[in-house]
Amino acid sequence: MIKDDFSLLDRLAEASAEAILPHFRRLSGVENKADDGFDPVTQADKAAEAALRAILASERPDDGILGEEFQNHAGSSGRTWIIDPIDGTRGFMIGLPVWGVLVALADASGPVLGMMSQPYVGERFLASPDGAFHVDRAGRRTPLATRPCASLDAAILTTTSPDGFTPEVIPRFAALARRCRMVRYGTDCYAYALLAAGHVDVVVEMGLKPFDIAPFVPIVEAAGGAITDFAGERIGPTLPHTFNGEAVAVGDASLLPAVLEVLNG
Amino acid sequence: MIKDDFSLLDRLAEASAEAILPHFRRLSGVENKADDGFDPVTQADKAAEAALRAILASERPDDGILGEEFQNHAGSSGRTWIIDPIDGTRGFMIGLPVWGVLVALADASGPVLGMMSQPYVGERFLASPDGAFHVDRAGRRTPLATRPCASLDAAILTTTSPDGFTPEVIPRFAALARRCRMVRYGTDCYAYALLAAGHVDVVVEMGLKPFDIAPFVPIVEAAGGAITDFAGERIGPTLPHTFNGEAVAVGDASLLPAVLEVLNG
Repeated sequence: MIKDDFSLLDRLAEASAEAILPHFRRLSGVENKADDGFDPVTQADKAAEAALRAILASERPDDGILGEEFQNHAGSSGRTWIIDPIDGTRGFMIGLPVWGVLVALADASGPVLGMMSQPYVGERFLASPDGAFHVDRAGRRTPLATRPCASLDAAILTTTSPDGFTPEVIPRFAALARRCRMVRYGTDCYAYALLAAGHVDVVVEMGLKPFDIAPFVPIVEAAGGAITDFAGERIGPTLPHTFNGEAVAVGDASLLPAVLEVLNG
Repeated sequence: MIKDDFSLLDRLAEASAEAILPHFRRLSGVENKADDGFDPVTQADKAAEAALRAILASERPDDGILGEEFQNHAGSSGRTWIIDPIDGTRGFMIGLPVWGVLVALADASGPVLGMMSQPYVGERFLASPDGAFHVDRAGRRTPLATRPCASLDAAILTTTSPDGFTPEVIPRFAALARRCRMVRYGTDCYAYALLAAGHVDVVVEMGLKPFDIAPFVPIVEAAGGAITDFAGERIGPTLPHTFNGEAVAVGDASLLPAVLEVLNG
């Protein structure tokens, strides 16, 4: 039952929070000498993914697992859990509350459930069988809905870094940024979550791994947006196995042709 | 008594949170049509600064007030409260929890008390008469201390945007970024707070207003770091009246000459 799978996301969020939070902002003062071999990011990443895999191995032994830190587990069910224990490593490293635990469940059609959990802020963005919603620290649920945006000059654009593109695409992204009302960097997974929530209009990234984007396919689509590669093809069906690393998310699907035109030069 | 002034920061943090949080992430769906004249950022900014000014007018009528949204109030005490109700407007606009309420109290020597409050995350960074500390959502206090960083190639550098410099400085900042271990954009006020907390080594910005930086002078200095202009002069004594908008913060003061050398071309 997909509803049972969705319920499992709560346990996965709690287990990953327990594994990660003791490491967040722990790197300071004398602990931080580069030569002492203490790497809290890698420790937190591995501890969280191990905790998630332990739950999945016990509760969904026939499902596959694709994660960032450990080897793939193929499974026999045709379903795959896709895990990024800490998306936004740079934000995590500097103590910024802009990172998230990403978990998706994909079947042959692509990701069908998704979660971004940010345990320090205490919030989650979810795609359930009943649609996409936000849950705050107090447990209040709010449906996620993208906002209309009729043209590029009204659009807020985000990406994690202006350097995160191939040399060919860097000037095209810059051209896109000039066409938009505003660009904001340093967003990582929050970019897609906040697009789904109606606060961002366009996200463009490349060089992504399947686990960086998988939960946001059902979250963005259920919230009313579209998420494609630079050719305009839905990336959902490419996940996890044939994804080319490109993502264009738009809250208002009517904006997609204009974004793709600039991006394709 | 400076301790009484410090206690007042709690009230200021609570009043600004009450004024701002009802507007955070309120811009979505149909409310967001560009033509309906609804601007929750400006509303939140003004409501918060008005709330802070009302408390100060009542509790510290002889002190001056320098804020972002309303006219300066000169005062007669020789002391000035410096207020930025929402630093990190772009982060606020897109719903990212990377913005803060900034309040500092300056006397003739510059800022002597400072606070950054992030009410959605539920944390504060403070410079008190007894040093700098972080307070989490549960009220737990942790002293702030910068970390040692012996050389640029070990340093984490942050700035809000690579575009936030004059044309002359843009390539120098890029050169600095190449010399450092890592650069992270989109940090706003969190950059200085996390430098004080020992997670960031260098912050460089220009075009700042006094209220963007005032609380971080005592926070960074009490945590063991240094905060100067591009000529290496302490900016504390320039605040609020003769500040040139440049800020270089380093957690390890021994790193300052190397940063300034690259920045000055």
